[in-house]
Amino acid sequence: QEPANSPAGQSEDALSLITGTPAEGFDLAVKLARRAVVATQPNKEVLFDQRPEYSEDAEDLIAASHVVAVHFQTIAAANDYWKD
Amino acid sequence: QEPANSPAGQSEDALSLITGTPAEGFDLAVKLARRAVVATQPNKEVLFDQRPEYSEDAEDLIAASHVVAVHFQTIAAANDYWKD
Amino acid sequence: QEPANSPAGQSEDALSLITGTPAEGFDLAVKLARRAVVATQPNKEVLFDQRPEYSEDAEDLIAASHVVAVHFQTIAAANDYWKD
Amino acid sequence: QEPANSPAGQSEDALSLITGTPAEGFDLAVKLARRAVVATQPNKEVLFDQRPEYSEDAEDLIAASHVVAVHFQTIAAANDYWKD
Amino acid sequence: QEPANSPAGQSEDALSLITGTPAEGFDLAVKLARRAVVATQPNKEVLFDQRPEYSEDAEDLIAASHVVAVHFQTIAAANDYWKD
Amino acid sequence: QEPANSPAGQSEDALSLITGTPAEGFDLAVKLARRAVVATQPNKEVLFDQRPEYSEDAEDLIAASHVVAVHFQTIAAANDYWKD
Repeated sequence: QEPANSPAGQSEDALSLITGTPAEGFDLAVKLARRAVVATQPNKEVLFDQRPEYSEDAEDLIAASHVVAVHFQTIAAANDYWKD
Repeated sequence: QEPANSPAGQSEDALSLITGTPAEGFDLAVKLARRAVVATQPNKEVLFDQRPEYSEDAEDLIAASHVVAVHFQTIAAANDYWKD
Repeated sequence: QEPANSPAGQSEDALSLITGTPAEGFDLAVKLARRAVVATQPNKEVLFDQRPEYSEDAEDLIAASHVVAVHFQTIAAANDYWKD
Repeated sequence: QEPANSPAGQSEDALSLITGTPAEGFDLAVKLARRAVVATQPNKEVLFDQRPEYSEDAEDLIAASHVVAVHFQTIAAANDYWKD
Repeated sequence: QEPANSPAGQSEDALSLITGTPAEGFDLAVKLARRAVVATQPNKEVLFDQRPEYSEDAEDLIAASHVVAVHFQTIAAANDYWKD
Repeated sequence: QEPANSPAGQSEDALSLITGTPAEGFDLAVKLARRAVVATQPNKEVLFDQRPEYSEDAEDLIAASHVVAVHFQTIAAANDYWKD
């Protein structure tokens, strides 16, 4: 439903906040957290070099989880908390 | 109600934001905070190695509590604050 | 109304977000901020050892206050800002 | 309207989120940010010793401003943004 | 509409969250972020001395931008997102 | 629709929170996160010098992503989550 991490700004980008389930909403939140990192640092090699640094550092993992939590809050509201 | 920390992205994942009580909502918030960490670092050994670092560091414990607070805010709104 | 910091996850936990006054709501927010710390680090001795570190560090005190602010926002909304 | 920083938890505390003006709402947000610090560290001497550390450190001043912003968001919503 | 950074707490302060345009709302958010810093550290000389530290430090600039984002969220809601 | 990062405060600035698609909303959130940095540090040379520091630092990239997430939450609400 959303092409692999299309660099931010491609207007024909089919990004939508509406998902079928909370699990899909959570995956989208993870994707949006990464999307902003790509928008700030489009060079995927630089990002790849950073992976060992943040993915094995508790503080960075918690900070990344925090960004996902904010996006998930947005997506959950967009889907009226998948109540129906 | 939610299988043990299923790695993010399994669409048949039965994640739901609706819980019977605030206490269950709080436990779910803790689980979602961890879920995003697993989505960023799926290697459970790496996460296990990190445990002594964050679980005995005040700053990291506070930061983790902050992520839970954001998810709990989302879950509380989803359950209309368990008013009825 | 809420037993002394019952470890997160005890489903019969009588946690409720509804309080009589903003002051009680604020105390509950402080309690919820600590509840997530206990959920992450159940060992009270480890937490006790951490106390000198965070309780005498401006940055940690501010970070803890931030978590309380997020929970208080949730609790205030749950109580419709104690308007009536 | 609110006694000098009464230590958190005094139930007869007359804390209210309703203020006459946005400026009073902002002052209340500053007070609530401090209130949580006092709840975490009731010893005013320790807090006084910390003052030089945070009040002359850009990072801490910004972090404190962030906590005020969260409380102000809560108070602004409680007062329906002082629209009338 | 809002006198130059009047120290927080002057009740006759004409602070209002209602602005004509999103751009004015954004400027107000920047002002409110600074207002809380002045409330915590009223000594403008100390703040002036801090400027080189935060204004040339990526981490501090991002943290300051975060506070503006929270205030802008509040102001945008207060103005119903300037939809009309 | 929004001139290249016009320095904050130009009242005739045509900033609007309403966008056609979520992708455009996300790009606007990235722009607003930067706008506040420019409002704090108008000297583009200083900002340019900072780029290597934050754009190759996991912690700063995550922190910047967090600011985008807050702005995106605001913009998504402004556009009623692009539901129609």
